Amino acid sequence: MRIYNFSAGPATIPVKALEQASREMVEFGDAGMSVMEMSHRTKAYEDIHNAALDLLRELLNVPSNYKILFLQGGASQQFAMVPMNLKRRGKADYVVTGEWATRAYKEGAGILDAKVIASSEDRKFAYIPEISGVSADADFVHICSNNTMCGTRFTALPETGDVPLVADMSSNILSEAIDVSKYGLIYAGAQKNIGPAGVTMVIIREDLLECTNQIPSFFKYKTHADTNSMFNTPPTYTIYMTKLCLEWLKEQGGVAGIQKINEAKAQLLYDFLDSSSLFKGLADKTHRSLMNVTYTTGDESKDAQFAKQAAAAGLANLGGHRIVGGLRASIYNAMPIEGIHALVNFMSKFEEEYK
Amino acid sequence: MRIYNFSAGPATIPVKALEQASREMVEFGDAGMSVMEMSHRTKAYEDIHNAALDLLRELLNVPSNYKILFLQGGASQQFAMVPMNLKRRGKADYVVTGEWATRAYKEGAGILDAKVIASSEDRKFAYIPEISGVSADADFVHICSNNTMCGTRFTALPETGDVPLVADMSSNILSEAIDVSKYGLIYAGAQKNIGPAGVTMVIIREDLLECTNQIPSFFKYKTHADTNSMFNTPPTYTIYMTKLCLEWLKEQGGVAGIQKINEAKAQLLYDFLDSSSLFKGLADKTHRSLMNVTYTTGDESKDAQFAKQAAAAGLANLGGHRIVGGLRASIYNAMPIEGIHALVNFMSKFEEEYK
Repeated sequence: MRIYNFSAGPATIPVKALEQASREMVEFGDAGMSVMEMSHRTKAYEDIHNAALDLLRELLNVPSNYKILFLQGGASQQFAMVPMNLKRRGKADYVVTGEWATRAYKEGAGILDAKVIASSEDRKFAYIPEISGVSADADFVHICSNNTMCGTRFTALPETGDVPLVADMSSNILSEAIDVSKYGLIYAGAQKNIGPAGVTMVIIREDLLECTNQIPSFFKYKTHADTNSMFNTPPTYTIYMTKLCLEWLKEQGGVAGIQKINEAKAQLLYDFLDSSSLFKGLADKTHRSLMNVTYTTGDESKDAQFAKQAAAAGLANLGGHRIVGGLRASIYNAMPIEGIHALVNFMSKFEEEYK
Repeated sequence: MRIYNFSAGPATIPVKALEQASREMVEFGDAGMSVMEMSHRTKAYEDIHNAALDLLRELLNVPSNYKILFLQGGASQQFAMVPMNLKRRGKADYVVTGEWATRAYKEGAGILDAKVIASSEDRKFAYIPEISGVSADADFVHICSNNTMCGTRFTALPETGDVPLVADMSSNILSEAIDVSKYGLIYAGAQKNIGPAGVTMVIIREDLLECTNQIPSFFKYKTHADTNSMFNTPPTYTIYMTKLCLEWLKEQGGVAGIQKINEAKAQLLYDFLDSSSLFKGLADKTHRSLMNVTYTTGDESKDAQFAKQAAAAGLANLGGHRIVGGLRASIYNAMPIEGIHALVNFMSKFEEEYK
């Protein structure tokens, strides 16, 4: 029996996509083979590859002067590739709003003169700080638009003028409407809201592709933009699964449709937290994430007890990140609202018993 | 109906592995979820991850002073990571035996003083050149142990003394016995003989892990060796499929068992080529690959006609690489001997008709 999986990533996948993948695993259509056996240089695979790219462009309303790339290595590889590629004058501004934003900053600091222009570390990353003082001569400003561990998100974008805004959207891509034209570069590991782990999406404005830095050609965005992400063998099966997940998303009404559902899901959970006598939310209300809801009983052992009992009741992976502690429910696009109802019911019962 | 797929990579996968993956796609055992939905920080996934690593160690008889890593980005990323990590004095020797070896050399030349110490380009890479004159002060000697496009392989290793030997084994890893202790580093993209595209195996001698070069931490082998390849989210589902493929390989008698089958398969095909009045092999006999059999009718249009008719008869992807031309049958571990019989029968009939 399938359970409700509140994992922060890799995370729950639409059942419909899994069922289709199961049916097509040994033979895809009349291809006589599995998708994972197809040469990436065949039309059969190229159709899948291009369909996935086209769906991303449509769902995110990506303007024609942006390229969409399928890379590998996750956000962690982008922490290095972004400064390697975008370095011009040699300075960049970072907004530090959590563990992953910190890692991005640290990797950037090894490559160029990286400056923290705002941080919310003073209150354990429970909010998004005011951002001002963007360096006019910075090569880019880096933000992490949703912070998986602490459960915050940007609800407004910083003013960066002509300085390109770069965003790690690994944990909220495709969950709510964005205006891609406000960004120079967006990247996201797939394993939260796009598809399975193993592919990384990059959306880059074309003027940022030109790069004369002395870096290995494989790490240049242009290498992959010029070859439709087929410079070398792409992670073909992962891209096929991504396509199935994006098709499902389109059936939900696309990003606009899923945003309404996501807002309803998050509100259910936050409303419960705000009225609870046992649990309390960890993030400031104004910056609460729609994707990662963090909370606690205030008692470490009670938190652990809750996560354990919830798992036994078919509500899995509710423990907070090992670095942050507490509890966390990751409720990405593929988590149905029934999962939230089940969680709230369970929390309610637990509260009755332990308050 | 499944067909025989002679693709050079991604390539055919054992049917048994595909069938098991299909059964377990929606729910893995009693986990209540698919493997691709599991957090990489759960015991359920870690068991899969470690089982795949243990199988590789067992099947390749990897000594205890070597680490095995699961990375991403394919051999192409290793073309950069090898010189980035192993650069000490700043010189490396490359043996150029085909397209991929050339690419490795070119990427290396952007990072250190790369020298071609032997090449077979003079005869379109149809052989493996004599190797002498390894630089005593080189940081490594790089070879490509099997050349997918031209169908050659190393049948003996160069003497490199104390200089670490680095081998790209993407297209013949696990196909025949190797002595890992002869190498400093071995790497292989998975999509030919390990599993699906999207994971790259690296075997590295521990003393080579120490690296003080100023490179992004994500591109240091040590980062991944110190974290059991879990520094960031690994391509979890691809590693699961790899495990299923390695279990199948173990059932074939491991590398020793599959080597006998591979030798028999290759001999069938080469014997036919050597007695054919229409087809002829493209690689020198002494260096013929067991994995990629290259041949031609000597007539470009007849080659194309053959590949087309063969595909219609359920023998797919027999065209040579677009750079090299001619014909090629890639017969990796998962290609059953029945596929070779079917191919030889078809070639025989084609020869009757067109000689």
